[in-house]
Amino acid sequence: MKISKYKHNSDISYTLGITLTIELLKHKPDRVKMVFLHSSLTNGEGYSCIAKLAEEHSIPIEYNDKVFNILSQKENCFAIGVFEKFENPVNERENHILLVNPSNAGNMGTIIRAAVGFNMSNIVVIKPGTDIFDPKTVRSSMGAVFSINFQYFDTFEEYKENFSNHALYPFMLNAKSSLECAQFKEPCTLIFGNEATGLPEYFSKEGTSLIISHSNKIDSLNLPVAASIAMYELTKGNF
Amino acid sequence: MKISKYKHNSDISYTLGITLTIELLKHKPDRVKMVFLHSSLTNGEGYSCIAKLAEEHSIPIEYNDKVFNILSQKENCFAIGVFEKFENPVNERENHILLVNPSNAGNMGTIIRAAVGFNMSNIVVIKPGTDIFDPKTVRSSMGAVFSINFQYFDTFEEYKENFSNHALYPFMLNAKSSLECAQFKEPCTLIFGNEATGLPEYFSKEGTSLIISHSNKIDSLNLPVAASIAMYELTKGNF
Repeated sequence: MKISKYKHNSDISYTLGITLTIELLKHKPDRVKMVFLHSSLTNGEGYSCIAKLAEEHSIPIEYNDKVFNILSQKENCFAIGVFEKFENPVNERENHILLVNPSNAGNMGTIIRAAVGFNMSNIVVIKPGTDIFDPKTVRSSMGAVFSINFQYFDTFEEYKENFSNHALYPFMLNAKSSLECAQFKEPCTLIFGNEATGLPEYFSKEGTSLIISHSNKIDSLNLPVAASIAMYELTKGNF
Repeated sequence: MKISKYKHNSDISYTLGITLTIELLKHKPDRVKMVFLHSSLTNGEGYSCIAKLAEEHSIPIEYNDKVFNILSQKENCFAIGVFEKFENPVNERENHILLVNPSNAGNMGTIIRAAVGFNMSNIVVIKPGTDIFDPKTVRSSMGAVFSINFQYFDTFEEYKENFSNHALYPFMLNAKSSLECAQFKEPCTLIFGNEATGLPEYFSKEGTSLIISHSNKIDSLNLPVAASIAMYELTKGNF
């Protein structure tokens, strides 16, 4: 199998690390093509877990240190899972997180991790947007990317046509209401803009715009922080 | 002035970027030794703002592209502020965020940004902990690091002796109460552990331990996400 650096247009992606590879094997064994192990990983809990799961699902394991030089900049990476990308459409009866043009892979992964934490496992991305299968997203999601539904749309209009049953809550700095006073109708869609630019002004006419009120000493909250606070407020009391 | 890569034991640090350098000049002009500009930055809003602030405070500006090669890996860095590190003890009448052995500079900066956003600008770090003046922390704080009080302590015991008036709220996965039900006494201290290991078990005997309840599909929330949700809940209604 020929291994090359991750590309967005490739059909395969990678889990870089033992824990991530275990999450992949647990949640998406049918998508795993193979697992590479580093020559220094021959025993221990991580090794046993990977070996057991790979055997269970008849997934080949290969020792190949060169692959680690190609795919991982980190020295502490000892296992790499190779998986085929997959589709997993969002559920129309459940709440959604919708990200308009998110640009940072690490942020996307952090949002996915929190989303799974708050049982909000339906993520929508309006293009252009960072790649959900980028190994950096996979890593910062801590493997949560393997348990979500997600869908990309070319435009917000297209999303709305498909999910007209959803109450919309765009998060904007000039919003009408404050998050803490929101009365959510469900199923709903929490909408967040790009890290640098936020949401385009026309979103203020969509549903009920909300702000997470804060002091004027900062311009805005970090995107994963804002999205996570919103998910916390929407779902609190559920756990 | 001799410029070398940032070191934790150095007396000086750097702001890498136009926006950060402007924040530095606005909030801590007395600590700025000089500003380096890249030869491609000769006009525009950022240039004018830096030039005006530097003149106001008699801070030297130098064009020197070599410095950018030494200090910045990013191609879009056109201004660098050189500043002396400073101390700014926390206020005993105000609420605190206390981080026990935080290990990631980017996370620390993200927490500082949210802390300033929620008017919780007193940050305590129990050593060993990442360096608040690391250029990565400065960057991810978006310059908020220049408007906080902060203090490092060798041990948590030492902190407690100095701030016995603070109600303690350690955030732990095996906590007694859930955040959403917390009745905070103020001034208080919200306490968070290391990214990988959380808080040592003995913190469950300190004050009222709290959990941000979430599904069992993830092990824990990302540290800046958890700290920001806690600050949001504590301060909501204040803005």
